Amino acid sequence: MFKQITIIGFGLIGSSIARAIKQNGLTQKLICGDMSRDVCDKVKQLGIADEVYSDLSKSVQGSDLVILSIPVGAMGAVADKIAPHLMPGCIVTDTGSVKSSVMLALQPRLPSKVHLIGGHPLAGTEHSGPENGFAELFANRWWILTPMPHTELLAVEKLTKLFEACGSNIQIMDCEHHDLVLGIVSHLPHLIAYTIVGTATDLEDDVKGEVVKFAATGFRDFTRIAASDPVMWRDVFLNNKDAVLEVLGRFTEDLTAMQKAIRKGDGDYLYERFKETREIRRQIIDAGQANYVYPKQSAEVPAPVAAPRSKSGS
Amino acid sequence: MFKQITIIGFGLIGSSIARAIKQNGLTQKLICGDMSRDVCDKVKQLGIADEVYSDLSKSVQGSDLVILSIPVGAMGAVADKIAPHLMPGCIVTDTGSVKSSVMLALQPRLPSKVHLIGGHPLAGTEHSGPENGFAELFANRWWILTPMPHTELLAVEKLTKLFEACGSNIQIMDCEHHDLVLGIVSHLPHLIAYTIVGTATDLEDDVKGEVVKFAATGFRDFTRIAASDPVMWRDVFLNNKDAVLEVLGRFTEDLTAMQKAIRKGDGDYLYERFKETREIRRQIIDAGQANYVYPKQSAEVPAPVAAPRSKSGS
Repeated sequence: MFKQITIIGFGLIGSSIARAIKQNGLTQKLICGDMSRDVCDKVKQLGIADEVYSDLSKSVQGSDLVILSIPVGAMGAVADKIAPHLMPGCIVTDTGSVKSSVMLALQPRLPSKVHLIGGHPLAGTEHSGPENGFAELFANRWWILTPMPHTELLAVEKLTKLFEACGSNIQIMDCEHHDLVLGIVSHLPHLIAYTIVGTATDLEDDVKGEVVKFAATGFRDFTRIAASDPVMWRDVFLNNKDAVLEVLGRFTEDLTAMQKAIRKGDGDYLYERFKETREIRRQIIDAGQANYVYPKQSAEVPAPVAAPRSKSGS
Repeated sequence: MFKQITIIGFGLIGSSIARAIKQNGLTQKLICGDMSRDVCDKVKQLGIADEVYSDLSKSVQGSDLVILSIPVGAMGAVADKIAPHLMPGCIVTDTGSVKSSVMLALQPRLPSKVHLIGGHPLAGTEHSGPENGFAELFANRWWILTPMPHTELLAVEKLTKLFEACGSNIQIMDCEHHDLVLGIVSHLPHLIAYTIVGTATDLEDDVKGEVVKFAATGFRDFTRIAASDPVMWRDVFLNNKDAVLEVLGRFTEDLTAMQKAIRKGDGDYLYERFKETREIRRQIIDAGQANYVYPKQSAEVPAPVAAPRSKSGS
């Protein structure tokens, strides 16, 4: 499918993509580019790439696909480093959680003979680093692609087939719409989770101990989300400012109304609001999105997708 | 241990207590009292009580333990109904999520020769009703008891042994402290989850469809919490107003600071806040509170506790 693929940034996501590509035999040569020598050493130890470079300009030479799996805030600087060394006709994609600002950072820096297609796999765990990646991370998860208006359809199809072979379901969207939808389903929940866990962190020590002890009553779900990578999430909020502030504004209005109802003792209002939220849960259950268990935490590892290696020979 | 136990209210919690008591042989006779004839019919079908009454005054006669497993807002009215029929020396406990207001509602209504001990098992699922209860719901979960200052120690010990035999770990607390701690770990997270899911419910239909589709990215965890019983949660917020408004005030301050940092593009502030929340997650993992999976959703049902029936014969 691709002769040579370079993945830049070998954290949880990058190293998981590498494992999925190797496991399913989707390229002849897989190259790791990571500016951290520690990460490079770990990747060599783990044996999950054919070649490993801390010099990013070397890592992309001769590759027909380059996947940028780095924090959103680092996209511009990395693009400057690799742009002169990209092969004409090569596809460049990324895995950033915001798309408009990433496309704005990448497009003017990349040569015009390169196909730029934004990407965002909706997958992850609370663990970071190359040692925590696994090939099944993308199985049955969405992978959103945001091609530019002028991107060649053939390039989009090629990338779609690659990620489908990693087990993902592909959804094409434009950048702005992606950022609004993700602002609601992902960025706002993370911001709120970080905030409430922070509020608890500021409590007096004796109460804090009991918060830990009795966390299983609702709070625990928030702490899992709030244990996500702080650099990644800082960059998400700095780079999806408009959409996040928009949905945060709506949320704050609704929370103020709840607060007022509690203060006034308005039981009818609270009951009506609490009742209507059950419906959306039912829809999520119907959509089969309710009960995913991370493979690392249970024995229920999704079956790996059939390796398309045999197909590529036909 | 107890000769005759009455459980009033056979929802998820009440019916699970009944199952745990029966399975572990902790009483000679177990009586169900529930004002809903539908519930009474279901309990008869399920065969999880020895006798079933929709007349609450009949259900408590001759019992040496009465467990009120009803919405917090119904405590006063039920106490009025059963008070004249309680056996002197009987223990009355409840399973309400708030304690100060419940104790205030129950104490003046109950005869002085009854032992009143507040209770709150920190266990539950998003499913309600007697058909969804199961005996292992309380295994390895906390059960907080809030005795009155004048409660006899012997009564507290007897109740402790019963709930320990159901698999719970017992924690003694005073009412006010319980309400503050639960306000943080449970009530505030539920209020926030209800609010954010409500915010999503108000979205335009096309975006709402995508919220459901891509819920797995953070939002889903909130929808599980926001699918909890609306009557129960309305009563929680009406009856723990002071503590909830106090912690909500702290949360809102912190959220406003986050909002300001996003608007100003203050990456350092966001990074520092996001980093420190990882520590509390680590403490929760260390405390063994991180990965509980509901028995109904997985094969990992906790082993039932050893039946103390053999002990009572010695």
